[in-house]
Amino acid sequence: MKTPKSFIREILKVTQRPEVISFAGGLPNPALIDTVGIGKAAEKVIREDGANVLQYSTTEGYLPLREFIADRYNKRYGLNVTPNEILITNGSQQSLDLLGKIFIDKGDAVLLERPGYLGAIQSFSLYEPEFFAVDLDDDGPDTKQLSQIIDQECPKLFYGIPNSQNPSGISYTTERRKEVAKVLNDADTVFIEDDAYGELKFTNEVLAPVKKYMPDYGVMTGSFSKIVAPGMRMGWVCAPEEVIDKVATAKQAADLHSNYLSQRIIAQYLADNDIDAKIANICAVYKERCDLMVKLMDELFPPTIKHTYPKGGMFVWLTLPKGMSSMKLFELAMEQNLAVLPGNPFYFDGGGDNTSRINFSNASPENIQKGIEILAKIFNEWKA
Amino acid sequence: MKTPKSFIREILKVTQRPEVISFAGGLPNPALIDTVGIGKAAEKVIREDGANVLQYSTTEGYLPLREFIADRYNKRYGLNVTPNEILITNGSQQSLDLLGKIFIDKGDAVLLERPGYLGAIQSFSLYEPEFFAVDLDDDGPDTKQLSQIIDQECPKLFYGIPNSQNPSGISYTTERRKEVAKVLNDADTVFIEDDAYGELKFTNEVLAPVKKYMPDYGVMTGSFSKIVAPGMRMGWVCAPEEVIDKVATAKQAADLHSNYLSQRIIAQYLADNDIDAKIANICAVYKERCDLMVKLMDELFPPTIKHTYPKGGMFVWLTLPKGMSSMKLFELAMEQNLAVLPGNPFYFDGGGDNTSRINFSNASPENIQKGIEILAKIFNEWKA
Repeated sequence: MKTPKSFIREILKVTQRPEVISFAGGLPNPALIDTVGIGKAAEKVIREDGANVLQYSTTEGYLPLREFIADRYNKRYGLNVTPNEILITNGSQQSLDLLGKIFIDKGDAVLLERPGYLGAIQSFSLYEPEFFAVDLDDDGPDTKQLSQIIDQECPKLFYGIPNSQNPSGISYTTERRKEVAKVLNDADTVFIEDDAYGELKFTNEVLAPVKKYMPDYGVMTGSFSKIVAPGMRMGWVCAPEEVIDKVATAKQAADLHSNYLSQRIIAQYLADNDIDAKIANICAVYKERCDLMVKLMDELFPPTIKHTYPKGGMFVWLTLPKGMSSMKLFELAMEQNLAVLPGNPFYFDGGGDNTSRINFSNASPENIQKGIEILAKIFNEWKA
Repeated sequence: MKTPKSFIREILKVTQRPEVISFAGGLPNPALIDTVGIGKAAEKVIREDGANVLQYSTTEGYLPLREFIADRYNKRYGLNVTPNEILITNGSQQSLDLLGKIFIDKGDAVLLERPGYLGAIQSFSLYEPEFFAVDLDDDGPDTKQLSQIIDQECPKLFYGIPNSQNPSGISYTTERRKEVAKVLNDADTVFIEDDAYGELKFTNEVLAPVKKYMPDYGVMTGSFSKIVAPGMRMGWVCAPEEVIDKVATAKQAADLHSNYLSQRIIAQYLADNDIDAKIANICAVYKERCDLMVKLMDELFPPTIKHTYPKGGMFVWLTLPKGMSSMKLFELAMEQNLAVLPGNPFYFDGGGDNTSRINFSNASPENIQKGIEILAKIFNEWKA
């Protein structure tokens, strides 16, 4: 594998210059972090139970927080999850690392989406699997391809992001979810369902997780980064108890337990606030930014430039005509202090040179306008 | 390897019953956690810089915190550490996991102390090394044995705890530190120097870390768990920059970065408080508990029961006469609601059946008196 990480690190360093408009990162909008509410929760748990919230705690995590997570799955999607099927982690990235640790042996076949989430590629790579990938279309993974690869390679697991995928912004349709579940279930293949963006929805459509259709082999990862705050690094794994037992053993060796103060702060924050209203507010702002960006792309970009129409999340995915390089696009945009992320690093086996990931959650409407105008000008003046 | 983990988990569950006096755990004394000071620091960083302290941050960690750690090494021991040689982790356990990840390939020889820290055995085991161990005497590792094993097995690294070792409570003398450094340096063998207890000293003797005598191959791990609070899971790795680069790559894949809110809280707490005075207070209390425990052991135990005289840390180590089982001691003590930890799990290759780890940091003077009296009675009435 090439080392996309260091390339992206370099890009993100460049884009931190204050004069740069950045569509390259994946940061939640800081104006939507409820610092007052979180501050109150922090003050309260330390004042009322300081010696406990600052002491060592259990590997599985704070029970009321695990209960909240289980309840929410059950209420939103009619799942049947118990708190014993939830383990608190330092965010989704650690969930992926721990799952890689327990599932992947060297040389195992591991199936990804194409394009696929870079953080998962990085985590899993440490355990030296052989990667395969299934193409995404607008409705989700190509299930014919999925069946073929599963028949041929017997992968240990399939990793995907059915809601507002990173990087493509695509959401699987309900029908496609059921098809994917059937294929995986029939082959006893684990699905690692990364649901970092499931709460960031721009429509009222309820899309139940794939796990609903394959409870025995469904493993979900979730995160408070996008709905409360990312700086506390709080996420979870939701899986059958025998999987959670193994994750707990790996977690204990990895760092004993997740930051207990932050678990207590988040649990207090969720108890004292209407989290649905907070999430609705985040979704309203992101939808407005997304709508503006997509509308400007439709108006200003030449018709040869294709883009996705996200139903949630934080990203739009651009596909340029074959032969048009998104690395060149990156360079031309940077000359005008606009940062966009080339899509190639999201293809573990190369390709995607004509794709680019565009973030809309962290730029103001003014900067979205400016940035898309810059891109439109570049596209309209493009010389092969 | 047997699975000591689950055994210890079981023990720690039993010992959580309120009627049990526990010498079995390794918890800091909760009365010494400065909940007011930490609460003020939390309130301040969230109020003054909330949107930043709750946002994603850098993998290496908060620079002023890394500067504090480097400065403290340099002032206390005359080291020459820069902030670029410090990376913030989720406590010592994660430091060990990340170091295992970057240093250990399957089948590599890894050298431990005998007895050795269980958390390190657990972390390193995941990377499937072949373990070897060097015996500890009252002054540190047996350097003749150390040389022999290094000659024969060429271990990738030696892992040890020179200050108030867990479980034995032994501290290496300065002379022994220099000898260990020389042996390791001559063989280009890395020393992972776990310094979780270095600040918990009961004497004024300055014991410079082994790293001082082998800067090129010295890797240290440190922790705020024993001097500020364990619940925030904050520690660090101190190593040459080329090692830190590798640790950063592993850390990024493991969980992106350590909890940024907690990094900022600790940095603020250290800026606003006299940490030397806080540590002096913790040491005074622990020394008092340790002195009491050791005095009672000397007075009440039969002379066949040997124990260490800790110069710091949280543990006394008992050695019973050969053939006297510390597992039986555990059972007899539990009948009287006293928990002590059998030493066998600290021997990766078996042995130590006549040893026991006794914690003094987390029991009141009254309970220390009661507990040692119970043990003395058991020893005096022991039937082979």
